[in-house]
Amino acid sequence: MNIGIIGLGLMGGSLAKAVKRYGIAEKVYGFTNSEKNKKDILELNLVDEIVDLETLKKVSDVIILSIPVDAIIAMFPSFLDIDEKTTIIDMGSTKEYIVKNIPSKIRKNFIAAHPMTGTEKNGPKAAIDNLYEGKTVVLCDLEANDNIHVNKAFRIFQEIGMRIVVMDSKEHDVNACYISHLPHLISFSLANTVMSHQNPKEIIALAAGGFKDMSRIAKSSPRMWGDIFKQNRENMLESIKYFEEQLNLAKNMIKEEKYEELEEWMKKANSLHEIL
Amino acid sequence: MNIGIIGLGLMGGSLAKAVKRYGIAEKVYGFTNSEKNKKDILELNLVDEIVDLETLKKVSDVIILSIPVDAIIAMFPSFLDIDEKTTIIDMGSTKEYIVKNIPSKIRKNFIAAHPMTGTEKNGPKAAIDNLYEGKTVVLCDLEANDNIHVNKAFRIFQEIGMRIVVMDSKEHDVNACYISHLPHLISFSLANTVMSHQNPKEIIALAAGGFKDMSRIAKSSPRMWGDIFKQNRENMLESIKYFEEQLNLAKNMIKEEKYEELEEWMKKANSLHEIL
Repeated sequence: MNIGIIGLGLMGGSLAKAVKRYGIAEKVYGFTNSEKNKKDILELNLVDEIVDLETLKKVSDVIILSIPVDAIIAMFPSFLDIDEKTTIIDMGSTKEYIVKNIPSKIRKNFIAAHPMTGTEKNGPKAAIDNLYEGKTVVLCDLEANDNIHVNKAFRIFQEIGMRIVVMDSKEHDVNACYISHLPHLISFSLANTVMSHQNPKEIIALAAGGFKDMSRIAKSSPRMWGDIFKQNRENMLESIKYFEEQLNLAKNMIKEEKYEELEEWMKKANSLHEIL
Repeated sequence: MNIGIIGLGLMGGSLAKAVKRYGIAEKVYGFTNSEKNKKDILELNLVDEIVDLETLKKVSDVIILSIPVDAIIAMFPSFLDIDEKTTIIDMGSTKEYIVKNIPSKIRKNFIAAHPMTGTEKNGPKAAIDNLYEGKTVVLCDLEANDNIHVNKAFRIFQEIGMRIVVMDSKEHDVNACYISHLPHLISFSLANTVMSHQNPKEIIALAAGGFKDMSRIAKSSPRMWGDIFKQNRENMLESIKYFEEQLNLAKNMIKEEKYEELEEWMKKANSLHEIL
């Protein structure tokens, strides 16, 4: 089959590498709005050909949208004239708002997916081998899709080595919030706590593994994450509330010098790693 | 020289490996209160000999304390009869409270150090090669030490490949709070947020690199961290306040849908990595 990828940054670029590597695509076509990225994509040889949108729509059996979540929605009108055999897969980090807005005319072709993988980097140069292998992809609300499209999506994700999990889009957004969106907001908050200190350089000079891990995802793209926080706003506000409650518990135990209780609370946190 | 290490877990055990490997110590002696650890230390061959405390005090040119910060203070009376040529180095994560409590009789021999390295693991089996190489060690309030002791400490840390930074203990505790202690409390809080959810297993099944990084240090020892939060209590409370302010800023921008401001705030967080 021919695969057309719209957006060839970290996620799309790495997918282009994967579908080539596993021989899933005869041809990989790419489309991007960015002239700068176009140059990088060609230099990195990520796709067989960069084409315009109308060409990509015609020559692709599967179209993959790996662009920010608001941009996915903005593109919906461009797909209204798509062939009913063409599969469209979006790889956005939010699912409920996207699914709710898919035009009914393309609802059967449109697979809502979220590969649970990434790095803090972005752009075509961030594309890497093995981004998807061994990772989980969530597919949402498949009951609205035709089997031909579900099968194509399964085939692609399976053949690049992913574990497929099927879930309701509402449930996905709650889970993705706790496992990814909230941790990103916390990392941004920690980075800004240090950057707002009077001596950030002096503090950061002492950074070891713990801080590097805790601040790594604070390097992520503000543009991309702004859209995610917007689309998953209600879950974000709820999860922040629960996180604040936990932090507040800890703060009060320190304030009131209840260190035995604090140890018990930390033991509960330790227990996460019996599951993870 | 002969080096005696009290506490042979992650930090002490890894130090024993390092001083042997670089040929710094003729003999490495160990002391531990734990019968279980004693067995592991012997099996792992971490030291030349496990001895009792009085023997260790007599045969060691340098004594290293790699035990929880409250245990360091509890041991002070045991060192009052130490030879004035014997150097004592503590490797605790807090410094001001420890320095303040060093008995005047051993103040000149006692070097307050904090190697900025570690993992989330503990116990003798957590000891690894290369824990110290290329990392930073902070030495505090050296003006109170005799040069002979400062020189021995410098020699050891330099020869195992560490970068030495000298700092006031008060300043150390502020910086260590932001770069290490606060991030640990945040990681524990995030882990407990997920563990308090109704479906932690379902959420954690989707964990990828971001969550794994953000929750890794929530695996750390509650016993050890309880003592650190206690000894650095005031800085902890202040840093939590500043972190809460940042999180609150973000929460309100999401609540009030000020996404352009939120992007600017995330860009500021990104700038941390121009320094780090």
